[in-house]
Amino acid sequence: MIMHEPSWYAKERNINIITETKVESAVNDRAQDGTMTKHVVAGGKTYEYDSLVLATGGKVFIPPIEGTNLPGVFTVRTVKGGQEIEEYLKKSQKVAIAGAGVIGLELALALANIGKDVTVIEMMNQVIPRIADKDMADPIQEYLESKGVKFLMKTPVQGVIGTDKVEAVNAGGNKIPCDMVVFATGVRANVDLAKELGLDIGQLGALCVAPTLQAYKRGRLCPDIFVCGDVMQCQSAVYNGPTMSQLGSSAVKEGRVAGANAAGKNLQFGPVASPWVSIIGDQQIAGTGMSLGLASWYGVETVTGKATGLTRARYYPDAKKMTVKIIADKNTHRLIGGQILAGEEATGRIDWITAAILSGVTAEEFLIRAENAYCPPTSQVRDVVFAAVEDLVKNL
Amino acid sequence: MIMHEPSWYAKERNINIITETKVESAVNDRAQDGTMTKHVVAGGKTYEYDSLVLATGGKVFIPPIEGTNLPGVFTVRTVKGGQEIEEYLKKSQKVAIAGAGVIGLELALALANIGKDVTVIEMMNQVIPRIADKDMADPIQEYLESKGVKFLMKTPVQGVIGTDKVEAVNAGGNKIPCDMVVFATGVRANVDLAKELGLDIGQLGALCVAPTLQAYKRGRLCPDIFVCGDVMQCQSAVYNGPTMSQLGSSAVKEGRVAGANAAGKNLQFGPVASPWVSIIGDQQIAGTGMSLGLASWYGVETVTGKATGLTRARYYPDAKKMTVKIIADKNTHRLIGGQILAGEEATGRIDWITAAILSGVTAEEFLIRAENAYCPPTSQVRDVVFAAVEDLVKNL
Repeated sequence: MIMHEPSWYAKERNINIITETKVESAVNDRAQDGTMTKHVVAGGKTYEYDSLVLATGGKVFIPPIEGTNLPGVFTVRTVKGGQEIEEYLKKSQKVAIAGAGVIGLELALALANIGKDVTVIEMMNQVIPRIADKDMADPIQEYLESKGVKFLMKTPVQGVIGTDKVEAVNAGGNKIPCDMVVFATGVRANVDLAKELGLDIGQLGALCVAPTLQAYKRGRLCPDIFVCGDVMQCQSAVYNGPTMSQLGSSAVKEGRVAGANAAGKNLQFGPVASPWVSIIGDQQIAGTGMSLGLASWYGVETVTGKATGLTRARYYPDAKKMTVKIIADKNTHRLIGGQILAGEEATGRIDWITAAILSGVTAEEFLIRAENAYCPPTSQVRDVVFAAVEDLVKNL
Repeated sequence: MIMHEPSWYAKERNINIITETKVESAVNDRAQDGTMTKHVVAGGKTYEYDSLVLATGGKVFIPPIEGTNLPGVFTVRTVKGGQEIEEYLKKSQKVAIAGAGVIGLELALALANIGKDVTVIEMMNQVIPRIADKDMADPIQEYLESKGVKFLMKTPVQGVIGTDKVEAVNAGGNKIPCDMVVFATGVRANVDLAKELGLDIGQLGALCVAPTLQAYKRGRLCPDIFVCGDVMQCQSAVYNGPTMSQLGSSAVKEGRVAGANAAGKNLQFGPVASPWVSIIGDQQIAGTGMSLGLASWYGVETVTGKATGLTRARYYPDAKKMTVKIIADKNTHRLIGGQILAGEEATGRIDWITAAILSGVTAEEFLIRAENAYCPPTSQVRDVVFAAVEDLVKNL
């Protein structure tokens, strides 16, 4: 439990929380005559339920290579994991981080800032490879390099080397000496319990859900099983198909819908653009909808626009650079993605672009309709987001 | 000219700019047989035109009271006006500011910060009276009071007193000694030239325009007169009727549409929500769409939601307080207004709310569809904007 003690929930919310107890099995069976058998077994006890909420989350994907069980191998997922890393850092100087996603990069800078010798090892040719484009991500890599972080790009981690503990990693055939390795290699849905319940797993390896966040069993809705968080896949707002939205903000929205519906309401969870933002030192990078990489994977033809300006009026002191990239579907002209790289104020702007994407506007409509608040200390009179869409319309 | 010298426009844009020259008269007449007479007279010379762009702007409204011609009376509108204020401040200690809109308040703080004795005199019972609600604006007044700015509320300025120069103002019958008075009492459309052209003036005292920003004459479109900036009224995005959008950001959008269309394009200027933001010391106040005051004036029934939270995760250092208020139409449940009071990061969020308003969502749809980017240093996992809409839905 992170936010409160179990006793807080008991007292303030009348919720009984059982910790350090694994759910051993779960049943949700409908007999021919319609009779339901519904219970979970946990800690040797059987609990019957009216509604079951599955919030089993995700687990960090660790590549199937040798040596990942050695002391000195970590993942970043839980508070406990963080505490273990903190402890092990006391006797470590060289740290290898596998994966250059935002978690890997935020960790890399934090470790460089306390004087550690950090090497990030990434299989792809850019940092933040799935959700950011190379032109937007490269400046983040350069920034981290300026802070002393080393990168091995286009290099898979092929093994962890050591006898009693981590001594090196095998990265693309090279032996990189290190005292510890942190895997920040993405999260997979934890569907163990869902499989036991016989629930439908979707194309992306996560639970299929209705907009009400109810689960399915062989295509039939399970009216009393609700799903939320990293274990589910959902509908994309920028593509007619499923997507993963493994973000804290999405999980909270899903939790509220699943919880309310489990208690008898009828809320819906909409299609997602999945906006994200990462603060890496004095650089902010944010995105929403599809990156060019994802669009290409989905087979969507794109046109992009890009503009660089300032976060304040150009005559106002301390303005930071801001680059905005906007992506549209080449055929429909609808906005399907946006990315921001800025020294400040990226968060609200990516939420703005997200709202525009969710409303289904074309690039041309955006230029006509969108508006931005202007004040010299916090924006240019015509915001950089506009300039990017203007460039996009030219390219269309 | 503010941004560039006239010579820059001649060289870089092939635009001939004539400065310090008043347009004395303008003609746009259609004879019975369809023949057009089109020219302007300026500096004694006659210029024929294919397209005429009217960008005559606004002028600061100065109440019709005695003494406003005395030395020491100023308005805040032009760079020259600012320079004159700066010069006169050298021999002034006590400054009265008429009007507690954002311009008056930004000026009040700037003057208090350089040690002047500042009194703001406002006719209404709150600061930022037209576009912000009292509960959102009161903390700004308190903040300014903590910086030494004095306020006389519910008090009209009834006269400026002095023999050779300003010595005091008559504010609600009280004589307030001061060395200078600045009128920050709002801007009216400057329609002098438009009237001479016989163009239609709308209900709000500004020029009527088509979505293409063409003017009208007795209800008939003038295909070769284009309008932009503070001289025009436009369509509201939150009410079926006209509104004024006298903002720099709106003027730039309008200028691009009017200019492009004057040169043969067919762009449109959409209905506006008119987002604004003002940075007053370390306080930011922003708004979009209708305030409760405007809604009441328009006769729109409203329901509001409000929430206070933080600009960062609660465990993250240096989080600032953020209060968000959202206003919906009671009958349609559509979002029609939003206001933010925060220590940082208000601008992007008000643009986000604006995009939602422009897309026409109801409060309930917003809860289902909207998403926010999350990262502990720049937002809560469920942004305060969401919490405000949630409160609104409860109140609906």
